[in-house]
Amino acid sequence: MKTQVAIIGAGPSGLLLGQLLHKAGIDNVIVERQTPEYVLGRIRAGVLEQGTVDMLREAGVAERMDAEGLVHEGVELIVDGRRVSIPLKELTGGKTVVVYGQTEVTRDLMDARRAVGAPTVYSAADVQVHDIEGERPYLTYEKDGQVHRIDCDYIAGCDGFHGVSRQSIPAEVLTHYERIYPFGWLGLLSDTPPVNDELIYAHHDRGFVLCSQRSRTRSRYYLQVPLSEKVEDWSDERFWEELKARLPEDVAGRLVTGPSLEKSIAPLRSYVVEPMQYGKLFLVGDAAHIVPPTGAKGLNLAASDVCYLYRILVRVYREGRTDLLAKYSELALRRIWKGERFSWFMTNLLHDFGDDKDAWDRKMQQADREYYLGSHAGLVNIAENYVGLPYEDIE
Amino acid sequence: MKTQVAIIGAGPSGLLLGQLLHKAGIDNVIVERQTPEYVLGRIRAGVLEQGTVDMLREAGVAERMDAEGLVHEGVELIVDGRRVSIPLKELTGGKTVVVYGQTEVTRDLMDARRAVGAPTVYSAADVQVHDIEGERPYLTYEKDGQVHRIDCDYIAGCDGFHGVSRQSIPAEVLTHYERIYPFGWLGLLSDTPPVNDELIYAHHDRGFVLCSQRSRTRSRYYLQVPLSEKVEDWSDERFWEELKARLPEDVAGRLVTGPSLEKSIAPLRSYVVEPMQYGKLFLVGDAAHIVPPTGAKGLNLAASDVCYLYRILVRVYREGRTDLLAKYSELALRRIWKGERFSWFMTNLLHDFGDDKDAWDRKMQQADREYYLGSHAGLVNIAENYVGLPYEDIE
Repeated sequence: MKTQVAIIGAGPSGLLLGQLLHKAGIDNVIVERQTPEYVLGRIRAGVLEQGTVDMLREAGVAERMDAEGLVHEGVELIVDGRRVSIPLKELTGGKTVVVYGQTEVTRDLMDARRAVGAPTVYSAADVQVHDIEGERPYLTYEKDGQVHRIDCDYIAGCDGFHGVSRQSIPAEVLTHYERIYPFGWLGLLSDTPPVNDELIYAHHDRGFVLCSQRSRTRSRYYLQVPLSEKVEDWSDERFWEELKARLPEDVAGRLVTGPSLEKSIAPLRSYVVEPMQYGKLFLVGDAAHIVPPTGAKGLNLAASDVCYLYRILVRVYREGRTDLLAKYSELALRRIWKGERFSWFMTNLLHDFGDDKDAWDRKMQQADREYYLGSHAGLVNIAENYVGLPYEDIE
Repeated sequence: MKTQVAIIGAGPSGLLLGQLLHKAGIDNVIVERQTPEYVLGRIRAGVLEQGTVDMLREAGVAERMDAEGLVHEGVELIVDGRRVSIPLKELTGGKTVVVYGQTEVTRDLMDARRAVGAPTVYSAADVQVHDIEGERPYLTYEKDGQVHRIDCDYIAGCDGFHGVSRQSIPAEVLTHYERIYPFGWLGLLSDTPPVNDELIYAHHDRGFVLCSQRSRTRSRYYLQVPLSEKVEDWSDERFWEELKARLPEDVAGRLVTGPSLEKSIAPLRSYVVEPMQYGKLFLVGDAAHIVPPTGAKGLNLAASDVCYLYRILVRVYREGRTDLLAKYSELALRRIWKGERFSWFMTNLLHDFGDDKDAWDRKMQQADREYYLGSHAGLVNIAENYVGLPYEDIE
């Protein structure tokens, strides 16, 4: 098979890139290790920045999101017993976020891709990239007992943290930056109405809490837990009790509980690899960077990479501007580092770090909370990062 | 001797408190271990917040400051080769800072105290506080071979980090918070015109630089140096060469050098003790807290304590509101912690921490620099802290 852009990974970033390229008349093939059902089964974030929303519209896959997504004009923080409403729209000159599950975004993108008949190869085993340093890169994969080959101009590695793309780059080329946090998030998904119209990020002595949502009837709650916790020790009942204990009484009082649809513990990690390009291979999203979920930047940073790579590829094919390819990594990383900074800042601000912070650091953490939530400039700071910092123009 | 308020320490906070109390008709005596000449010989900060300026005016000691002090409407940051002007006045709705040396403030306060004939005992040895837990506290000191006693209602401990006041509070009552930084500041004072109208805070690979000033003809420069450095290894020539190496070429090119009037290395420390009151003893300024000099908060936070203690004492004597005394510590500390946070933030932002920061922390440090200096909200954040956050009303 031959195509212009081979995309590894049919998660939201691979699918979004594929859809945008297809609309721009650029041929692409997506190769995915898993089945579509597996991909759709992954529970992920649900808060879309304005820029991500704009891109989904540009890709022509926004119809259901625009109908069913919930526009949030604010977010609520509860720290040290004090409730602070952050009016995102007011503080950012009109920007908002849209609550719409990543699973739904993925489903819409899959449907759109199917509708236009663009090729996606699922259940592709042993995906390998070849000759990415040369002029004619290609990738191979095994399916139905046969090895297949896709020749292409460029390869987009949208295959996540554990994917083959980053691992295909010579180790000596890459610099890794990482921060592991001394806790995880225990998440519970349930078909219950959200406890609050807006998302609630709460710092409590017992640990951090996030009251998130996917729709008006589906809630997603998270509890900070020690890394040593096992999900099987958390009955639904125990989860709900602990959640209530970490929320103010009036909020806990109106919490509607119900059976969990999914429950899991995820560790928190910050990670970035530099550079995000090697020859004809471009890393996109989780393949190059991970954020802790505090601040909901994971999917949005993947969309940020897609945006830059898409815009560059369009100019490469339309205007012959192959010189722009070398700018991808720097452009993408500038925005990534800001998103990493905000996710790290929010994680530091709101979690209990136990012995990982000494008495001084805990006082600074508290002073940060008091300053940022007590100052208009501090609130603007949080708001403008939460809705997403602006994209840079290419050139 | 008998007085209403006994003040330990004739530095700027003790003198300012004494002057304000005197103007309000509240008797006070200041007891100082050193001679006036020694006190005036200490080289300290030179940037006054709006609130500090206002208080000096309220104390009636602002005449020379208003005539000779330089109003600064902005400050300049240079990070990673990029010069960013922070228009303080524009970003804070009209607030500015005044450059006027602490030595000059002290001199004006001494002159004013002498003019009104308020008692100051210099060269008082072995100052001790007594019965601070009871109704009739007093202090004693030795002078001219005799022990003297001052009976009073309250004692203000304005005697600095090494003073007797904090040490007179039972250890089990106090909680100490401290951060030691892995570097110091080598400072040089010279009668040369400042290299820039505004102060320059510069981050450089070779270390932090501050280009400060005391007047249009007197400059104060600082270089970040390892704690192992010895001042005797720094000839004036070496200092000027190193300073030039850390500044952009055009700035270095217009630097006027000259012989040093003073040269010293100071370690950087953050320190706070809680609470700031014990019985009839109130800690003020450096006796209770130390900041690293980045951000020029030391004298201003001392003035902040003076402001709260003065306002409370006025209401105690005028309205019998002794209940307010118990609020001093909490009120003062709320503002102190914000000042500590800002000094710590600026120190973290602009210094080279060597191995004290790992690769991730260094990336976050760089991301902080890019975010705060590249965002309007980030600049407002720095500006509003630099000019001084508002004081709270009492009650």
